Amino acid sequence: MDAPITVAVSTVIFALRPHPTTRRPALWIPLVRRIREPHRGRWALPGGPLAAEEGLAASAARNLRETTRLTPQYLEQLYAFGGPDRAPETAERIVSVVYWAMVRPEEADAGAAGVNVQWFVADELPELAFDHSLIVEYALWRLRNKVEYSRIAAAFLGETFTLAELRRVHEAVLQRTLDPANFRRQMEASGRLVATDAFRTGGRHRPARLYRHDRSIHLADNGPLTGQ
Amino acid sequence: MDAPITVAVSTVIFALRPHPTTRRPALWIPLVRRIREPHRGRWALPGGPLAAEEGLAASAARNLRETTRLTPQYLEQLYAFGGPDRAPETAERIVSVVYWAMVRPEEADAGAAGVNVQWFVADELPELAFDHSLIVEYALWRLRNKVEYSRIAAAFLGETFTLAELRRVHEAVLQRTLDPANFRRQMEASGRLVATDAFRTGGRHRPARLYRHDRSIHLADNGPLTGQ
Repeated sequence: MDAPITVAVSTVIFALRPHPTTRRPALWIPLVRRIREPHRGRWALPGGPLAAEEGLAASAARNLRETTRLTPQYLEQLYAFGGPDRAPETAERIVSVVYWAMVRPEEADAGAAGVNVQWFVADELPELAFDHSLIVEYALWRLRNKVEYSRIAAAFLGETFTLAELRRVHEAVLQRTLDPANFRRQMEASGRLVATDAFRTGGRHRPARLYRHDRSIHLADNGPLTGQ
Repeated sequence: MDAPITVAVSTVIFALRPHPTTRRPALWIPLVRRIREPHRGRWALPGGPLAAEEGLAASAARNLRETTRLTPQYLEQLYAFGGPDRAPETAERIVSVVYWAMVRPEEADAGAAGVNVQWFVADELPELAFDHSLIVEYALWRLRNKVEYSRIAAAFLGETFTLAELRRVHEAVLQRTLDPANFRRQMEASGRLVATDAFRTGGRHRPARLYRHDRSIHLADNGPLTGQ
């Protein structure tokens, strides 16, 4: 029963940045180029073995910091991957606890990437090492689902935002255009937004009211160990 | 970096049964009495070390089968618990991938418990071994959250059910009485229910229409490996 199983922690880090061709906001993730076999030269999710005295979330936060120099605003456990056939190239069996993080555009720009770190458009990735393509696909599916019923979109935005800014996050995540009037009605009905007294001015448009998310609604599910 | 970390899988199994005092539907879970140190004699979640060739979900299904003789209708990964201080009594560090399952009342009755297995009212548990009290608390919190936006309540019911039956599941999970008319409106607005042409007859009440859940809405999140 005491199989030699290694525990690793990997992190899918999402940011919204303009798509290189369309210039519309798109989801990007940073990847790390593997410098060792197996899969040497392939891109992989940031991560590594769980250190002896390190908590799971602490390990994920370290991945994020080492890859992007960022401390997490939104960091949540996504899923544990542990099928016995995940890495047939290696003798060991690896159970990966995967976290996901969302960072704001200004954070993503500030976090300079190292020589073996590069940001990619999440829907246009090369084939990744191990089962990491599958993991990213799952993270995208969960994000697209979750944006419909939670305030997860807030993780990509500043403290306050206009409805148009929020709609553009939803559009980027869902990869489809949303009708502004319908979106407004849906958000107002959700009870997740609080209108502020402030307005975004400037530009060609008339001033737009700023909203914030209802902070009584939990943003990240940090599990039961929030205090740690 | 290669710390001796053991991977275990544990399963929180929920069923709805009448509360022993109030006779109203309540959440119950089966626990296993520990026959070894540490925590000998204490009740714990069913589970154990991940076997060398066993997938995570397969291990959880085995927990369920061995504890209740049931095969899972609803089995989903809940969370991975891996803080370095989870089991200070033992020398080893254990990362537990926890699954949760929901079984229907007739299944829960059919699954005979062994001599060291006993069903408890989930909100009235004794102090459990290790951090299992915390894990159950988290599972209850997630269930109470999730019943508000998903069709998870279906896991406790048969293929078809009346609105009153569905409301009693919600009441048991949320531990509060719900107004029947409001509940009906809310469920009809959710788009998750499909009215059938059949009615529940008999008893003192007038015939009640039977509903089923929209099967195009995914019940359990089986991760990306649904095919396995």
